[in-house]
Amino acid sequence: MASPSAAANSFPDAAYRVAVVGGTGYAGAEVVRLLLDHPQFEVAVVTSGRSAGIPLHQECPWLNTDLVLSEYAPDTWTGIDAVVLAQEAGFAAEHAAELIPHYRVIDLSADFRLRDPELYRQYYGKSPAPNLGAVYGLPELVDRDEIRNARLVANPGCHVTAALLALMPLVSLDLLTGTPIVDTKTGVSGAGRGRKETEYLFSEIAEDIRPYAVTGHRHIPEIEQMVGRPIRFTPHLIPVTRGLLGTIYAPTKAADFDAIYREFYAGEPFVRVIDGLPQTKAVRGSNRADLAVRYDERTEMLTIMVAIDNLTKGAGGVAVQNLNLMFGLPETAGLSAGGLWP
Amino acid sequence: MASPSAAANSFPDAAYRVAVVGGTGYAGAEVVRLLLDHPQFEVAVVTSGRSAGIPLHQECPWLNTDLVLSEYAPDTWTGIDAVVLAQEAGFAAEHAAELIPHYRVIDLSADFRLRDPELYRQYYGKSPAPNLGAVYGLPELVDRDEIRNARLVANPGCHVTAALLALMPLVSLDLLTGTPIVDTKTGVSGAGRGRKETEYLFSEIAEDIRPYAVTGHRHIPEIEQMVGRPIRFTPHLIPVTRGLLGTIYAPTKAADFDAIYREFYAGEPFVRVIDGLPQTKAVRGSNRADLAVRYDERTEMLTIMVAIDNLTKGAGGVAVQNLNLMFGLPETAGLSAGGLWP
Amino acid sequence: MASPSAAANSFPDAAYRVAVVGGTGYAGAEVVRLLLDHPQFEVAVVTSGRSAGIPLHQECPWLNTDLVLSEYAPDTWTGIDAVVLAQEAGFAAEHAAELIPHYRVIDLSADFRLRDPELYRQYYGKSPAPNLGAVYGLPELVDRDEIRNARLVANPGCHVTAALLALMPLVSLDLLTGTPIVDTKTGVSGAGRGRKETEYLFSEIAEDIRPYAVTGHRHIPEIEQMVGRPIRFTPHLIPVTRGLLGTIYAPTKAADFDAIYREFYAGEPFVRVIDGLPQTKAVRGSNRADLAVRYDERTEMLTIMVAIDNLTKGAGGVAVQNLNLMFGLPETAGLSAGGLWP
Amino acid sequence: MASPSAAANSFPDAAYRVAVVGGTGYAGAEVVRLLLDHPQFEVAVVTSGRSAGIPLHQECPWLNTDLVLSEYAPDTWTGIDAVVLAQEAGFAAEHAAELIPHYRVIDLSADFRLRDPELYRQYYGKSPAPNLGAVYGLPELVDRDEIRNARLVANPGCHVTAALLALMPLVSLDLLTGTPIVDTKTGVSGAGRGRKETEYLFSEIAEDIRPYAVTGHRHIPEIEQMVGRPIRFTPHLIPVTRGLLGTIYAPTKAADFDAIYREFYAGEPFVRVIDGLPQTKAVRGSNRADLAVRYDERTEMLTIMVAIDNLTKGAGGVAVQNLNLMFGLPETAGLSAGGLWP
Repeated sequence: MASPSAAANSFPDAAYRVAVVGGTGYAGAEVVRLLLDHPQFEVAVVTSGRSAGIPLHQECPWLNTDLVLSEYAPDTWTGIDAVVLAQEAGFAAEHAAELIPHYRVIDLSADFRLRDPELYRQYYGKSPAPNLGAVYGLPELVDRDEIRNARLVANPGCHVTAALLALMPLVSLDLLTGTPIVDTKTGVSGAGRGRKETEYLFSEIAEDIRPYAVTGHRHIPEIEQMVGRPIRFTPHLIPVTRGLLGTIYAPTKAADFDAIYREFYAGEPFVRVIDGLPQTKAVRGSNRADLAVRYDERTEMLTIMVAIDNLTKGAGGVAVQNLNLMFGLPETAGLSAGGLWP
Repeated sequence: MASPSAAANSFPDAAYRVAVVGGTGYAGAEVVRLLLDHPQFEVAVVTSGRSAGIPLHQECPWLNTDLVLSEYAPDTWTGIDAVVLAQEAGFAAEHAAELIPHYRVIDLSADFRLRDPELYRQYYGKSPAPNLGAVYGLPELVDRDEIRNARLVANPGCHVTAALLALMPLVSLDLLTGTPIVDTKTGVSGAGRGRKETEYLFSEIAEDIRPYAVTGHRHIPEIEQMVGRPIRFTPHLIPVTRGLLGTIYAPTKAADFDAIYREFYAGEPFVRVIDGLPQTKAVRGSNRADLAVRYDERTEMLTIMVAIDNLTKGAGGVAVQNLNLMFGLPETAGLSAGGLWP
Repeated sequence: MASPSAAANSFPDAAYRVAVVGGTGYAGAEVVRLLLDHPQFEVAVVTSGRSAGIPLHQECPWLNTDLVLSEYAPDTWTGIDAVVLAQEAGFAAEHAAELIPHYRVIDLSADFRLRDPELYRQYYGKSPAPNLGAVYGLPELVDRDEIRNARLVANPGCHVTAALLALMPLVSLDLLTGTPIVDTKTGVSGAGRGRKETEYLFSEIAEDIRPYAVTGHRHIPEIEQMVGRPIRFTPHLIPVTRGLLGTIYAPTKAADFDAIYREFYAGEPFVRVIDGLPQTKAVRGSNRADLAVRYDERTEMLTIMVAIDNLTKGAGGVAVQNLNLMFGLPETAGLSAGGLWP
Repeated sequence: MASPSAAANSFPDAAYRVAVVGGTGYAGAEVVRLLLDHPQFEVAVVTSGRSAGIPLHQECPWLNTDLVLSEYAPDTWTGIDAVVLAQEAGFAAEHAAELIPHYRVIDLSADFRLRDPELYRQYYGKSPAPNLGAVYGLPELVDRDEIRNARLVANPGCHVTAALLALMPLVSLDLLTGTPIVDTKTGVSGAGRGRKETEYLFSEIAEDIRPYAVTGHRHIPEIEQMVGRPIRFTPHLIPVTRGLLGTIYAPTKAADFDAIYREFYAGEPFVRVIDGLPQTKAVRGSNRADLAVRYDERTEMLTIMVAIDNLTKGAGGVAVQNLNLMFGLPETAGLSAGGLWP
């Protein structure tokens, strides 16, 4: 028991109005989906460069709203408190500076994630964004007060969220003895809704398992800047829409890892260290991360497995979690820790 | 904006405590999922004959709760207001009489759906349940006051919900000129979680399309008792987990059917007559039904298409909708009209 | 036991060389797949407007061949006996006349399927192709000698193949008493490999069931020209790649339909009237059609169900079946009647 | 061009008759599927303990045959040349000794795979099979003459085939500098057709990604007995039916690995070292393995990726490949190196 229904109640005390820039892609629409059922936020503006003027539910038939899509035109906005940017790389780099004087801003792209501008140039092949004091928005692993006070939050990548939740307990205790290997299996929605390459067609993806970006994936420096050492990372494309499973192989000496991980994440509302093995469907549509560890003495390696919904905990959910922190609300407001199954 | 999060708030005014009998099957667990996020109901008891004593989340890893499963033992229950029966056919027939003096009861099985006991005997091959004054729980198509006042509500079947939402506007205006054909396409979760036949294995179902129960399906008399004439009904098993699409071919003279359907469902919070064509994913996890009509003058036939989530609007969601009515709450409390996509 | 492996043997007596025009789409590549394992045909040329110069296996990694794609340039071809056109509508209309003096030609598009040019104009909105004496290539339902002698064969559409296999036994005996309803459920590969609309992305299609082209589908006149009366036809898009299930509701008086259908298709190597119910996976990758009938006395309607692989029996397989006839080979040469399961 | 059709021709010179013991499971039925289209083998007997007396196509509707299933009764067999055992672990251990005096035998289970009986006891918890001189049937990695001369061939496991194809080129050149990590992603058919646990239901598996047997998987000793050092192995269950992708992380110094792998597998008809990245759908239904390597200098690790069809190259296909060797046929007879896509 807990949440009054979206449809049932209007909260007269609903205080904060949000503009979602790029609301018809998967990540942006996930933010809208969550905010439409949120008690203290109201979706006031949803933009779409391609579909301005069209009702949002025509582009996104799952969203039960009469909102009409508009162009990105912040000078026409009134009464907006927060802006969520869900655009291609480069948009936030160009526009964040004009927004942060007026709004609290969360950016879902990679533009402000890397501390070292050279790494951005190297992995993205473009000029890095200006330094606007962005805070890295992974609440479980950074100082939450920084998020609470930030004007600009850079949402972490979904592979990175899984890898860091798995590795940081070891890093914090300096337990790694070699190169960790991060092997992720991700649903197709991570490729976005605008991808028109043949390879993302249903008929190409269904019944297929494949690796991609075997070396040099852009998420590597984002993981390494927190882990503090090189990692080996390979993602795989799996025929599911939502869900990301990380299997992390960490060389380390024997220890009571189950206790270490449970203590590290004690009190976290959205991280659950479980007895069984994580599976992505248990967290589908949820902001929860399920995590388990198994040690293999024969090879002195810890296997850490973590399951998230790449669009919720890996994108739209953590955005709402960060919004909650930024506006002084309970961190869990409007976010379910339960999944949709089957 | 709307619903305070499950995790964030405890509602001190949460008033009603529910026992879910058979809470680890798909329909029962869907009721639990929805009630765990409901502002005015609390899940107090969840039973499972097979798994009593085990934490519910071990059987259902998607449910974020510490509840422990118990045997069906109503004499040990305290402070329970409502009981939802999500058991095999026959259980409610046997136990409803002992429950209704003490609790408001909703039964998800077919035991109390048919008014004519002979039809039950004929289609189910068993003795019908006693007459306990059960009310048929399809709020959009029955007198809601009957549900509000009922001690026992018989939840409709999922194929039936789709067929009746499609046909009753025509029936109410006496527009049918021949035998309607109901061709449904349903997700596999309708077969339940306990089905251990080989045919429901992933490797059998994936990439397959098949009809079943081509004549004589048990839902036929339940549709016909409201439509008032014979129908032709064939269901098909489709490799999706949730979702039911009904395509109904109704012989009828030309009329402005779009207007007729919009007027018939005006004001209904959970039925949406749309301009486009319904698709099941748009209502996944939602209590909404999407409906559209197209008339073919060449053959004088109206095609009505309706999409629901067989486990939500077709089972657990309508159960909560009925609970809301029975306890004087807003009909939409705790129910989202938005779907989970992609 | 039967077929020497592709890899194992070269047949010195392999006699006929085929050019496949448009060999990287699903239908064209299916023709190539089947011919690469065919004992008497050799794939000599595969064209692709977009990828000329590139090895075919780079575009189609499942094809085990070293062939390099080329432009459509018939004046450069040598020793070609047959041409299979697997292009968009309009290509064959433009080019067939220049090909048929030199080659036996099979066209997989709709250009030459309709006998009445007015219907083509009405349903396709374009000028019909010239009359080149094309023969309709549905071997089980036309005079096979016409196919054997044809210079140009128009391959039937996949929905049409299912509908006609289901209906023609009734039509031939004049048993229909009303309008037949054809409700098809089709895999996504029918939409082709070049479709870049968002709606064919994996993340949009997976876990979804939807109707499309509810009235006015282009296959309607192709069905009606053989059935001889109007039909009601609605296709549905199902999240499988291959496979088409037709459920046909035919008003008719009671008769021994099982015997009627078995007699009608007696001796056909690729049509199997079965005791159980058809399912698409049983014919995946196969040129076989599975068919069953069930009569409902209550509504005086026969339900005919037919399962085919839309890319094999519905496109590439029947093309090879027609090639076999045209070149005097056994009709079944190079075609398996077994499916790939699971 | 290559293979005369199964249906088209009877080969009067078809010489060898095969009994498939356990022909309704996925692996056994795959052997039957391949042999039904094989030029030199005839399926003479198919047994099924559960379904003796029933037509095989009733249990396996994809197989186009009139064979009737029988009990396992070798004393009633006549004219049988080879026996393929596709039964649960333990069957071959019990029955192989009585068969090998009379027939060439291939066993698909693990009974005869491990050279060290102690390892069998440790990983399988049962007494090992007697030593009958079984030859390990992985043609690309063992002495083919041993297979040619064997009375009893032990078919390798599917995860093992992928792991060994990936690792043995490094092992043969002694290039490994640390513990290799084998992370496999496998389709659900590997769990078999008889598995009635809830977890293999479509509704549980669809849209889910999960690890299993994270440590201690039974395939570990089978990999290690050939690699000669400990490995770290974790399999994952993916919602596809067929297909296994192995991602192997091998610590090693820089070298021209592409050349090394191409040379190692030069001339192999069923192993293809490719420029792109392997994907399972490209080898669906095929006996081919696709393999690619990528070196990461930052971490001094080689990533080897290999895709096979777990039921073909990983079970039924390699069985036919071994049968070909044992009977002096071309190794590729009756086996396609092309896949079924989409």
